[in-house]
Amino acid sequence: MIKLIIDCFGGDKSPEANIDGALAALEKYADLELVLSGDEGIVSKKLEGRAYDRARLSVLHAPEVIGCDETPTVAVRQKKESSLMKAVELLRTDGTVHGMVTTGSTGALVAAATLRLGRIPGVKRPAFCPILPTMAGGVVGVCDSGANVEVTPLMLCQFAVMGSLYMESMGVKSPRTALLNVGVEETKGDELRKAAFPLLSSLESVNFVGNMESRDFLSGNYDLVVCDGFSGNVLIKTTEGTAMELLKKLKKDIFSKTIYKLGALLMKRMFADEKDFMDYRNYGGSVLLGCRKIVVKGHGSSNAVSVEKCIEQAYRMQAASVNKRIRESVAELSRFTAD
Amino acid sequence: MIKLIIDCFGGDKSPEANIDGALAALEKYADLELVLSGDEGIVSKKLEGRAYDRARLSVLHAPEVIGCDETPTVAVRQKKESSLMKAVELLRTDGTVHGMVTTGSTGALVAAATLRLGRIPGVKRPAFCPILPTMAGGVVGVCDSGANVEVTPLMLCQFAVMGSLYMESMGVKSPRTALLNVGVEETKGDELRKAAFPLLSSLESVNFVGNMESRDFLSGNYDLVVCDGFSGNVLIKTTEGTAMELLKKLKKDIFSKTIYKLGALLMKRMFADEKDFMDYRNYGGSVLLGCRKIVVKGHGSSNAVSVEKCIEQAYRMQAASVNKRIRESVAELSRFTAD
Repeated sequence: MIKLIIDCFGGDKSPEANIDGALAALEKYADLELVLSGDEGIVSKKLEGRAYDRARLSVLHAPEVIGCDETPTVAVRQKKESSLMKAVELLRTDGTVHGMVTTGSTGALVAAATLRLGRIPGVKRPAFCPILPTMAGGVVGVCDSGANVEVTPLMLCQFAVMGSLYMESMGVKSPRTALLNVGVEETKGDELRKAAFPLLSSLESVNFVGNMESRDFLSGNYDLVVCDGFSGNVLIKTTEGTAMELLKKLKKDIFSKTIYKLGALLMKRMFADEKDFMDYRNYGGSVLLGCRKIVVKGHGSSNAVSVEKCIEQAYRMQAASVNKRIRESVAELSRFTAD
Repeated sequence: MIKLIIDCFGGDKSPEANIDGALAALEKYADLELVLSGDEGIVSKKLEGRAYDRARLSVLHAPEVIGCDETPTVAVRQKKESSLMKAVELLRTDGTVHGMVTTGSTGALVAAATLRLGRIPGVKRPAFCPILPTMAGGVVGVCDSGANVEVTPLMLCQFAVMGSLYMESMGVKSPRTALLNVGVEETKGDELRKAAFPLLSSLESVNFVGNMESRDFLSGNYDLVVCDGFSGNVLIKTTEGTAMELLKKLKKDIFSKTIYKLGALLMKRMFADEKDFMDYRNYGGSVLLGCRKIVVKGHGSSNAVSVEKCIEQAYRMQAASVNKRIRESVAELSRFTAD
């Protein structure tokens, strides 16, 4: 049995999307058990009349909600009865619970994970690893996408190890792992990249394929991109922003002439597919790798499908023993005493 | 009279595109004088039978070419007879020549500009400032996009000052200047960004509007983005890569069904416009700001239109006395003695 706790509040479409996603995942996996964290009155009411396996679903009462505009460290200290903090506390104290999913405040999650949950022994810093679709039909992971704006070469190596194990659990065999850089040559980049390159090359547990220019991010030639959280954040948000703005422009241009509208009518299905393809909510959430337990952060605007995908990510990570394998693999890195 | 030297070799479509672009610019601006740098025999042959004002065009013989695969520092030292080095030398020694345009090796250009041409007094490091189209119909500049992978807060301030003066010369009044960061709040980012924010806010010559997330890069809300060369490089290449990959995907999807092909036929003109819109060659080159003379680097794949735009950029910079104004404005920064 794999047991997860779902934070049902904090997202734009919560609690409905979170509860619907949870019930869908429960239906899909017979060996999945879920705990829903949130106001018991509200959650129970939403569950009324719904068909699900009652033996595998319970509610953990948490009357408070942490908003996205609250200062993370303050909220984490003061809102102990919030759905997020109750979830983290259960995760911390209950050995039978393997992971959690939340669509709430990223800052509060990172603060709570760091202050309360703790890291896997040997891991320097937890790192976010979101997944994006490539134009070749596959997916590509990015680690770190924003948890650590300042990193060391050893941390980049740990991101590579953790990200690789995670991508493997998502079904990618021997993930082709690249270092985000300003050019593909080994000598490119700043001191951080130059120091990290030989270390990454020496890792036996990572299929390191060299530097990657961000131009090739969506090409399908890479399965995992390793970077500091600052440039990783730029990489992800630029990709999402460019795709979104281009779709908006296409739409505007289509409506500028009748003949274009006519043409677009014939291509309606295709444009709907493109929109779906670019909707990051269809690719689940961003995993916070390196925590003692599995932590998946869904987008704030997650719908039920997205929440279900997030739960599936946590489920598959546990099924593949990702955290156990991270603990074993970071030991390999202990020989890098540089930092 | 504004006098520029055009490096006619080194680009994918050189020398034809460079010569054609030069003649077009010459036709457009009556007070423009051009020197073409390159093998005199080849260039003269290409000019045969063309109509142009001979009094305003001359050729500087340079029999060698620096390839894009050559090690910049070695090429700069050894190929003194190359079209690039001859152009830089003329720029350095001839007080009547205001600037240069090249579509050759970026690395060799930066090396030559640093080693031979030198900086405007007070400027710490030259920085690239390319221009991209926004979805609002305008343009946005990025400084630095890759010349300096490691920077200081003072350098970011200089990029803001130089970039603002440049964008003004391109017709943007009081350019809305933002700092690339992982969030819009003042407290976001690494030590570099946190240190730079108050300095940028205090600059009287810069219309600093705060932090920008890369998601909003193409929104049209910003005229200039200031960043280190590493994340600036990621920003530019991710934008170009995402746009290119999406267009490729659209094309592939259109050809997957007859009805889509039919629809696309009605929208043929629109798709051609979108492709043009996203073709970075239509927006000229990347200016290397901070050098003693004006330096414009066109894309390696520049066609004649692109070369003409690059020449126009240099022309407008000289007409607006950008370098003189940079020299005056960096003096304002001398009070930041932090680095």
